[in-house]
Amino acid sequence: MASQDELEHPNKAFGWASRDTSGILSPFNFSRRNTGENDVAFKVLYCGICHSDLHMVKNEWGFSKYPLVPGHEIVGVVTEVGSKVQKFKVGDNVGVGCLVGSCRTCQSCTDNLENYCRSAILTYGDKNVDGTITYGGYSDSMVTDEHFVIKIPDSLPLDVAAPLLCAGITVYSPLRYFGLDTPGLHVGVVGLGGLGHLAVKFAKAFGAKVTVISTSPNKKEEAIQNLGADSFLISHDQDQMKAANRTLDGIIDTVSAVHSLIPLVSLLKSHGKLIMVGAPEKPLELPVFPLITGRRIVAGSSMGGLKETQEMIDFAAKHNVKPEIEVIPIDYVNTAMERLVKVDVKYRFVIDIGNTLKPKL
Amino acid sequence: MASQDELEHPNKAFGWASRDTSGILSPFNFSRRNTGENDVAFKVLYCGICHSDLHMVKNEWGFSKYPLVPGHEIVGVVTEVGSKVQKFKVGDNVGVGCLVGSCRTCQSCTDNLENYCRSAILTYGDKNVDGTITYGGYSDSMVTDEHFVIKIPDSLPLDVAAPLLCAGITVYSPLRYFGLDTPGLHVGVVGLGGLGHLAVKFAKAFGAKVTVISTSPNKKEEAIQNLGADSFLISHDQDQMKAANRTLDGIIDTVSAVHSLIPLVSLLKSHGKLIMVGAPEKPLELPVFPLITGRRIVAGSSMGGLKETQEMIDFAAKHNVKPEIEVIPIDYVNTAMERLVKVDVKYRFVIDIGNTLKPKL
Repeated sequence: MASQDELEHPNKAFGWASRDTSGILSPFNFSRRNTGENDVAFKVLYCGICHSDLHMVKNEWGFSKYPLVPGHEIVGVVTEVGSKVQKFKVGDNVGVGCLVGSCRTCQSCTDNLENYCRSAILTYGDKNVDGTITYGGYSDSMVTDEHFVIKIPDSLPLDVAAPLLCAGITVYSPLRYFGLDTPGLHVGVVGLGGLGHLAVKFAKAFGAKVTVISTSPNKKEEAIQNLGADSFLISHDQDQMKAANRTLDGIIDTVSAVHSLIPLVSLLKSHGKLIMVGAPEKPLELPVFPLITGRRIVAGSSMGGLKETQEMIDFAAKHNVKPEIEVIPIDYVNTAMERLVKVDVKYRFVIDIGNTLKPKL
Repeated sequence: MASQDELEHPNKAFGWASRDTSGILSPFNFSRRNTGENDVAFKVLYCGICHSDLHMVKNEWGFSKYPLVPGHEIVGVVTEVGSKVQKFKVGDNVGVGCLVGSCRTCQSCTDNLENYCRSAILTYGDKNVDGTITYGGYSDSMVTDEHFVIKIPDSLPLDVAAPLLCAGITVYSPLRYFGLDTPGLHVGVVGLGGLGHLAVKFAKAFGAKVTVISTSPNKKEEAIQNLGADSFLISHDQDQMKAANRTLDGIIDTVSAVHSLIPLVSLLKSHGKLIMVGAPEKPLELPVFPLITGRRIVAGSSMGGLKETQEMIDFAAKHNVKPEIEVIPIDYVNTAMERLVKVDVKYRFVIDIGNTLKPKL
């Protein structure tokens, strides 16, 4: 029988949740609020599996609350809109990324940078304004304030669109903010996973020459032939790295394992920018001298604001930037998580929610 | 008797040089080239003592060549100009900072950023285009290509102008480049020495609220009452530091001792910038998570280009930004160096070359 928590809202919902630090996901009945006047309700059709889902289901960052329904790369079709909703109508293809709320009044919100609002509400495992816990897109339905809903262009297949809502914007935003979107620049991408492969594609779409930097020599062919990178560096090959010294205008570093920044900073030209989008748990060693002598920058970037996320989706549709995905049924999700630990996916799992998530009786 | 080296150029010159890693400076006869068609020759009147002079006289950075005549905060009066010199005439007040040459063709040079040219020629202890060693401003005369000569406005006293040519531009340039020159911002300055006290003054002149962050509580009164800072944080007072979390738009960090960046990054607002202008010998620990969650930047900056140095000097003259100096005779220079080691100066020694440097017979 369902607990009180699971039925606190009037509308039945169904998804898969992890219940403890094992991270094992299993069917879960819960509820969604009624569609408020500013809300968009939609039937979920696809949801990407982000690496942070893996951390969250196991409470590896220490703030997970169980039961936890993950998923913040969510796309579907609008089923109902509130009376004040202006941007969406029933039948529209829409998406929700990492955020479902923010204060809407702070400087970050005013600047369309809701992702840096200190009161931003995460799409799952966070406390909503009404005090209930947010549940993500490994579920059959979503109800979200329209401000946090993205319009998916008709030309973009929904399964392909899903990973853009987190992985896509996470690499698109720093390329834009740090001026790495100027044609003709030389951009490095460290790590070739969900984020990295999209960084390659967006940088190419902006007109950059792209070099992938990886520990795995066997990714070279894939990076160049399938993803369109121009060159490839094996990060532990000191001769290769040395020959590439001072050649890059910027680097998007997607690696969240602890790693040295020293060889990466050396790859930057003067005024070059090393942007971290993966978050190692421990502090990294920062060489200060090459920062000073070349006015180089090390920075971080997290997701993107809603306005920029819409811009990114429209750009992806226009320039044919599509994630490489492996579509899976919901029953496969625990196996997918195991494969994700082993980095055994090219490059993003997307759960076919619409066709495979069946309510438990 | 003078060695061959000391007489390789036609014109006699005289200064003080260190001869070995003791760093002890003593009188030294050498020579300067004839005034070339693009050269400005000037009689040195004042020269600031930069902290890097201390490192260089003792070969602490490993690339000093002896005998070494230090000094790259040099001001004086023009005595001769070459036939093609356009910007200067005899009698002008002029200065030379850290550079006396660069390739003039690379991207950095084209962008008026000669300070980031890989072939930049340092004012002392470097190899000049003719293969001779450059000698600095602890000497009676200079001969320098006019491109690397700065016009000192008449309203700026020459002794006060000297430290602007290195310490001044080193803090002015990052305030400008990183957008910390917008009125109303809140800027932190770490360390209150030669660079730090000028960072306070320039930031105030740009219209910022300025907070000094220091390990020394006894600098508070000085920082606020004499230098015009608005507030003061003792860096090891965790309550003070915590209360100031997320309050700064940018920080100029002038400390070259190894120190933690973690508390400094915590002081930054979202999109805040921590700019290092002091160069610790070892890598520093960089916390990545707060960079990512606030799109914060850690960067370095070194000196400034010639165009910007002229702009800085003109700005200082217009806005009355004047270094606090202690004028000393050349005979005092070794004592001054000892005091510099103990950070016993407010805030810059300036050698009165014109009145106290007497040629040895």
